[in-house]
Amino acid sequence: MNKKELGEIGEIKLIEKIRKRAKKRQGVIVGIGDDCAVLRVGDSDNLLLTSDLLVEGVHFYPNVNPRYLGWKALAVSLSDISAMGGKPLFSLLSLSLPSHLSEKWLNDFLSGWEELAEIFDVSLVGGDMSEGERIAIDSIVLGKAKSPILRSGAKVGDKIFVTGYLGDSAGGLFSLQEGLDFPSLITKHNKPFPRVKEGMEIGRIPGVRSMIDISDGLASDLKHICDESGKGAIIFPDKIPLSPDLLSLCQSQNLSPLDFALFGGEDYELLFTGESWVKEKISFPIYEIGEIVEEKGIWLVEGDKRRKLARKGFEHFRKRG
Amino acid sequence: MNKKELGEIGEIKLIEKIRKRAKKRQGVIVGIGDDCAVLRVGDSDNLLLTSDLLVEGVHFYPNVNPRYLGWKALAVSLSDISAMGGKPLFSLLSLSLPSHLSEKWLNDFLSGWEELAEIFDVSLVGGDMSEGERIAIDSIVLGKAKSPILRSGAKVGDKIFVTGYLGDSAGGLFSLQEGLDFPSLITKHNKPFPRVKEGMEIGRIPGVRSMIDISDGLASDLKHICDESGKGAIIFPDKIPLSPDLLSLCQSQNLSPLDFALFGGEDYELLFTGESWVKEKISFPIYEIGEIVEEKGIWLVEGDKRRKLARKGFEHFRKRG
Repeated sequence: MNKKELGEIGEIKLIEKIRKRAKKRQGVIVGIGDDCAVLRVGDSDNLLLTSDLLVEGVHFYPNVNPRYLGWKALAVSLSDISAMGGKPLFSLLSLSLPSHLSEKWLNDFLSGWEELAEIFDVSLVGGDMSEGERIAIDSIVLGKAKSPILRSGAKVGDKIFVTGYLGDSAGGLFSLQEGLDFPSLITKHNKPFPRVKEGMEIGRIPGVRSMIDISDGLASDLKHICDESGKGAIIFPDKIPLSPDLLSLCQSQNLSPLDFALFGGEDYELLFTGESWVKEKISFPIYEIGEIVEEKGIWLVEGDKRRKLARKGFEHFRKRG
Repeated sequence: MNKKELGEIGEIKLIEKIRKRAKKRQGVIVGIGDDCAVLRVGDSDNLLLTSDLLVEGVHFYPNVNPRYLGWKALAVSLSDISAMGGKPLFSLLSLSLPSHLSEKWLNDFLSGWEELAEIFDVSLVGGDMSEGERIAIDSIVLGKAKSPILRSGAKVGDKIFVTGYLGDSAGGLFSLQEGLDFPSLITKHNKPFPRVKEGMEIGRIPGVRSMIDISDGLASDLKHICDESGKGAIIFPDKIPLSPDLLSLCQSQNLSPLDFALFGGEDYELLFTGESWVKEKISFPIYEIGEIVEEKGIWLVEGDKRRKLARKGFEHFRKRG
């Protein structure tokens, strides 16, 4: 059993195995298994620490515009901080890069990173750099939160909310692959905008009970909340916010926009649960799409029809070919 | 010029370029360019944050024992914390791994990591994981220090100290490559022991002015201190501590032990400068090997002969083949 290949086991189970082995020593409020670690150093606020690894051929194509890649590398980690209601403060960047890349490539990459860093006032304070055959980027962000919102806090009866359109990033990727002209979708794929301000506002509302960012798709990330909270969820598909452009793409190509919204990743919208009145306390548009229930599983409810969703998110560790 | 390849520019100049671009915003006490970033969050102690990237084919051979690799991946980051006199607290681990690796490989890797983590009470609190063609490991450690010792504090007249034998790790690597039987050297290469306790003790002595860990070799790392402090240094080669086993290896193979000590990396001993009396305050053996001087450069002094060292450390980013 121990001889199984990693590709057969898959990312999620591997992380679960590491989580079981990792000893939680002093100062660890939340360890492996949420969007960020939550840590205490002396009398500090809760510190949030997260890292996200992007690997060429797995997370992006080698010919991607380096400016977009730099932006996205920071965006994914900022999004993890947002998903706990935190404020991002500092970043590190570890880069493994083929030596034939040009200096311009690196400059463009850093420009993309800095463009987003500037918006949220996040300093690049360190990291490491090495040659490597393929591009690999580890993006690390340290932030803070007074009361971090965890994945594990969902209660039966909580309403489920999202902060914006789902499926746009996957629609953008599809458009890029098929050479279709949907610039707004493509921009959402290339330069996802992490919901940092929104996350901080949501995190301050006491009735909010759990939160995650949608990086792997609604189905997959809602399942994380359900698993960690020991609950299930119902979703009303007709309440999932879909952008006019995604609808128009799907109509023109005879595709299901719901599939994009449920299983498309990289939207980096926030998904959170809380009491019903929470929505009245929030200063920006949010969408109520379902409810936390006792029965395990994710259930799609349309009228009096109800079907259970099989999980179909994107895993970054699986056997290819 | 912008079209230059990264391999032509080299790791150190690339990091210098990134350092110049990185904006230091609020809370950044020390950014890029020292062993760790030094950060403030609210009224916290000084936080230390560091990441070290190890890439297959650059930093280690693919057939390395995963237990040693896990140990070493954590050791290099703990050593960075020690080099500031800090206490390591928490770690993250980002792994890019070929999917054909076995579960046993990962278990052994984690056992090596945990073996060292246990000694210094460092919790593994998060990270990321992805498939990748080659093994790449990013090891991140968060620590703290009341008064971090920087590379930039060396003053003319400071004595230069090291905490232990130099060149042993390079001697171990050489023994491995040549199939020679020097187990103590090979162990120093496979399982370098970061000087965490020693670094914390050194960091508490007020007369200590600068510190770094020896990861790239004495010549290269002393040059970092000199560059950051705007000074030079003289070294007395006959005062550099050399282990009996390194001497015996070099004698048997007709090699220069001084070359191993000056240019061999990965000893992870601490190199620090300070007032002469510092050595009397320290509870473990240290070695005084030279002095900080006004004139730039690293000078080897033997009797009345004096020669300038050309830099010859290991760079992790250079053109191959």
